[in-house]
Amino acid sequence: MRTYDEYRSLVEAKLTSFLPQVAEEAATVYDAMKYSLTAGGKRLRPVLLLAACDFAGGDINEALPYACALEFIHTYSLIHDDLPAMDDDDLRRGKPTNHVVFGEAMAVLAGDGLLNSACEVITQTYAKCFDDPERLVRHIRAGNAIILAAGVNGMIAGQVADIENEAPEEGTDIAQMVDFIEANKTGALLMAPFTAGLHIAGAPDDMIRTFEFYARCIGKGFQIADDILDFTSTPEELGKSIGKDKEQGKCNYVMVYGMDRARQELSALTQQALDAMAPYGDSAAFFIDIARRLETRKA
Amino acid sequence: MRTYDEYRSLVEAKLTSFLPQVAEEAATVYDAMKYSLTAGGKRLRPVLLLAACDFAGGDINEALPYACALEFIHTYSLIHDDLPAMDDDDLRRGKPTNHVVFGEAMAVLAGDGLLNSACEVITQTYAKCFDDPERLVRHIRAGNAIILAAGVNGMIAGQVADIENEAPEEGTDIAQMVDFIEANKTGALLMAPFTAGLHIAGAPDDMIRTFEFYARCIGKGFQIADDILDFTSTPEELGKSIGKDKEQGKCNYVMVYGMDRARQELSALTQQALDAMAPYGDSAAFFIDIARRLETRKA
Repeated sequence: MRTYDEYRSLVEAKLTSFLPQVAEEAATVYDAMKYSLTAGGKRLRPVLLLAACDFAGGDINEALPYACALEFIHTYSLIHDDLPAMDDDDLRRGKPTNHVVFGEAMAVLAGDGLLNSACEVITQTYAKCFDDPERLVRHIRAGNAIILAAGVNGMIAGQVADIENEAPEEGTDIAQMVDFIEANKTGALLMAPFTAGLHIAGAPDDMIRTFEFYARCIGKGFQIADDILDFTSTPEELGKSIGKDKEQGKCNYVMVYGMDRARQELSALTQQALDAMAPYGDSAAFFIDIARRLETRKA
Repeated sequence: MRTYDEYRSLVEAKLTSFLPQVAEEAATVYDAMKYSLTAGGKRLRPVLLLAACDFAGGDINEALPYACALEFIHTYSLIHDDLPAMDDDDLRRGKPTNHVVFGEAMAVLAGDGLLNSACEVITQTYAKCFDDPERLVRHIRAGNAIILAAGVNGMIAGQVADIENEAPEEGTDIAQMVDFIEANKTGALLMAPFTAGLHIAGAPDDMIRTFEFYARCIGKGFQIADDILDFTSTPEELGKSIGKDKEQGKCNYVMVYGMDRARQELSALTQQALDAMAPYGDSAAFFIDIARRLETRKA
């Protein structure tokens, strides 16, 4: 296993190389995609994908296209989420958001372009495995996990519920809605790296199930930490606006359950994630560290 | 070979069945996707895909998921294209556009959801071919053709150029720009059905090349006919706004070359498409008919 920064460097070194080259007439959309893709960020999802593959003895070079495709999807979701019609954010990772720089129309297309490019990277990587059917099956399982997690039964479902949460219908179970948003909006794309990375490595099903449980815990914890930071952080620390949920009349975990219970739940989820890794002992040190870092993160 | 209406009925019967089921919390995005998907339309692209597969002796049931995925992509592109930040259209196929009915945020997500669902359908269909590696290769080639055609080297590139065409930079070669828009915005998704349908059928390379040439001709002709109709039709006939290009200061084929040359070019392209089919004689009657219909269409 390598360190977080080593995985991250691998991602940074290759990320834009997986973007398709485009014709001069469409150069602006390339610039817009690259702008958001290189605007920083922790690269958490691709790092987790490489680490999961590495943990299970896979070749992380095989996993790299999927890691980058996942970051494309995460980045497109931020671009569309920041649009005036959605969360209307001007600031992301301390920089002007995509639509502020490139205009709304180009931001819509840059998001579309990144999602499509992610699918291109995935299906073109399949096409490089034609001479090795066993490898091809592993890759398709990995690609499937990513694309399903991004869709209307994953991330998009979470975003839909998040928007409807601004004006919930009479009788909506708010706690259930908040749980749904957390499991999907953030959770789905935090589980996909494990499922995909482990499939690339050809890991056994029970290992995949264990890591998916771990991922559910840290994914939910990640979103609760986000909700806490939305109250306690500053725009400077966070690199994005704060207090947005309240401003938009949205309910989040802290509003539904209160700050104390939010902190308790974050702590309990972290412990569950750590417990899930216990059978792997020291070899899972990387994932134990990740769970602890996510609990105490400031941004 | 079946008739246009027979292929179309097959598509209509199965189209929404390929949409992923979604959780109750995200039901609105399903409604929004289904609204635009069932708002009518000629189903030209999926029909062409089934017909190309059928022509080359393939099993059109194998081709059906790809035909529906292609219609998902076409539909998402219309939803995003109609957004206020893009073409700002309130009317599509004679009905209120997606964002008019569901709001802008949901229309963005419905478009995202349809593109993602298309990729889900494609890669999940791959996963059903694990026991037949030869079939899997044909499917991946078909899926690749669709996803590449939809991306930043295909449809999205055309949309980007179309937006920049509203305010071209000093020194832009307008004729070249209009050609680029036509080849990509409409052309790419009219070529993909042939490439994909023929790959599903395992057609030989020279047949694929011949049909791609045919597709380039009818694709360019299709867009020129669109530009002509933008001047000569009525909103009632067309089911969408007319005169939009002029209103938005965009150049199209008619504006660059004049109506006479546009009609001549449409006629010449149709003839080239017919000539390309000549070697296949009567067996290509379906595609000869398509080329003639597209030349004389009124909507």
